[in-house]
Amino acid sequence: MNTWFTEQQTESVRLGLKISSIVWQQRTPFQELVVAETDAFGRMLVLDGAVQTTVADEFVYHEMITHVPLFAHPHPRKVAVIGGGDGGAIREILKHPEVEEAHLVEIDGQVIDAARRFFPTISRDLDDKRAFLHVTDGIEWVRQARGFDVMIVDSTDPVGPAEGLFAPPFYRSIAEALNPDGILVAQSESPFLNASVVRRVVSGVRASFPVTRLYLAAIPTYPSGLWSFTLGSKTALNAHGRHQQEVLTAPTRYWTPALQESCFALPRFVEELIG
Amino acid sequence: MNTWFTEQQTESVRLGLKISSIVWQQRTPFQELVVAETDAFGRMLVLDGAVQTTVADEFVYHEMITHVPLFAHPHPRKVAVIGGGDGGAIREILKHPEVEEAHLVEIDGQVIDAARRFFPTISRDLDDKRAFLHVTDGIEWVRQARGFDVMIVDSTDPVGPAEGLFAPPFYRSIAEALNPDGILVAQSESPFLNASVVRRVVSGVRASFPVTRLYLAAIPTYPSGLWSFTLGSKTALNAHGRHQQEVLTAPTRYWTPALQESCFALPRFVEELIG
Repeated sequence: MNTWFTEQQTESVRLGLKISSIVWQQRTPFQELVVAETDAFGRMLVLDGAVQTTVADEFVYHEMITHVPLFAHPHPRKVAVIGGGDGGAIREILKHPEVEEAHLVEIDGQVIDAARRFFPTISRDLDDKRAFLHVTDGIEWVRQARGFDVMIVDSTDPVGPAEGLFAPPFYRSIAEALNPDGILVAQSESPFLNASVVRRVVSGVRASFPVTRLYLAAIPTYPSGLWSFTLGSKTALNAHGRHQQEVLTAPTRYWTPALQESCFALPRFVEELIG
Repeated sequence: MNTWFTEQQTESVRLGLKISSIVWQQRTPFQELVVAETDAFGRMLVLDGAVQTTVADEFVYHEMITHVPLFAHPHPRKVAVIGGGDGGAIREILKHPEVEEAHLVEIDGQVIDAARRFFPTISRDLDDKRAFLHVTDGIEWVRQARGFDVMIVDSTDPVGPAEGLFAPPFYRSIAEALNPDGILVAQSESPFLNASVVRRVVSGVRASFPVTRLYLAAIPTYPSGLWSFTLGSKTALNAHGRHQQEVLTAPTRYWTPALQESCFALPRFVEELIG
């Protein structure tokens, strides 16, 4: 069978992935959800036409959106993920033995259902006794949340259900939900193809966090293959932190202690982009 | 006009770029050469169906294949590029004031002609008085070359004309052409989509160079967006070298002094891939 899934990544760039089957397809109350089997990257989750995760490369995104802020924090006990219904971020967070509570706040319960059913290697820790699931609007939920050490915004693109997760008031609300040494990380799209989103997230986070830094990771199924994450910290970061002593309870495939530092070394054009 | 150029990057992955026109198309004695105007990345050079360079992202590849070895070398006076007929590597090499000779050894003179005609911003320094052009087979040329400080293998993919540039005897031949403190860099494809090529280049370079290291850069129009370069050195590398004192004669858009170190920090799966 010669069938291709094509993501229109921008108006003028497409990614094509050969697929052997479409495993599942549904319209949830929030978005179009498709599960397909690709030849190159294994099983893939697509929301509103955009690749969210594949079994072969999900480790990059999920490790880098979690371990970087958790290792930057001196004692991450209480952590929340806004979005991230596939459960991959929760799986990585729970590799940190000092984490006591990992909250998942996903607006679309059917994403969680599909992850449990079709992506067991990604969703496998959603039933861990340290995992707490909230199927609700993240913006509302964060408003009443308090006492968190790390909050992670693992959102879809800034159109549709995730739009409010890219707005300055949301970052301010996260700053209030965090402890005085709290850290936020938000996925902030591609410096090559979504420069205006990178700028918008960085300036939004800067408005509420005295320390703001951007870091990068290579994700082949995301537009341009280069993805950014914006980190906001309420206090100065200890660049040479805990991660040199601590040990995760399971290995990583992308993150290393050296990358904890070097992912913040930005190409000149990215430094200039965020000013 | 809704016209798309599609690169079949692997059997199961395609990159699609919207184009406004095909500027030039010819069959050279070595390959099919196409110049097209893309919406997302500006003018693009395609050889045998594979994107070689675009005006918008060529800076990444050309800066990273040159500045990393040149700054790793204590005094790069005599440099050669095997392949690289577009001239982008030569342009970057000549930003180093201590370089006295930058030799370009391209088997396909029609690539150089097309670069001069259609890519003036890339080829602009091919007529510099420190640039020496050789339209000939790189393998033969390297066999008689001696006294080089840095040699750069800026090849197409390891099929067709470039196949011999990925073979161990070629790296041995480069080692002989280099001075005792000489450095080789070879482009070595994508760790995500061409793992066997990465492994082949690294093991080939290791066979002739006592110090071998891999480094990475993000190139959106290359398969997976993550590209590797294999560096071989005949002597120990000084990781904190010259680049902290020296100044290039023109700015960079990707390379920074911090990236000179951090580009060698590999994701765990890449460390494991090269063993």
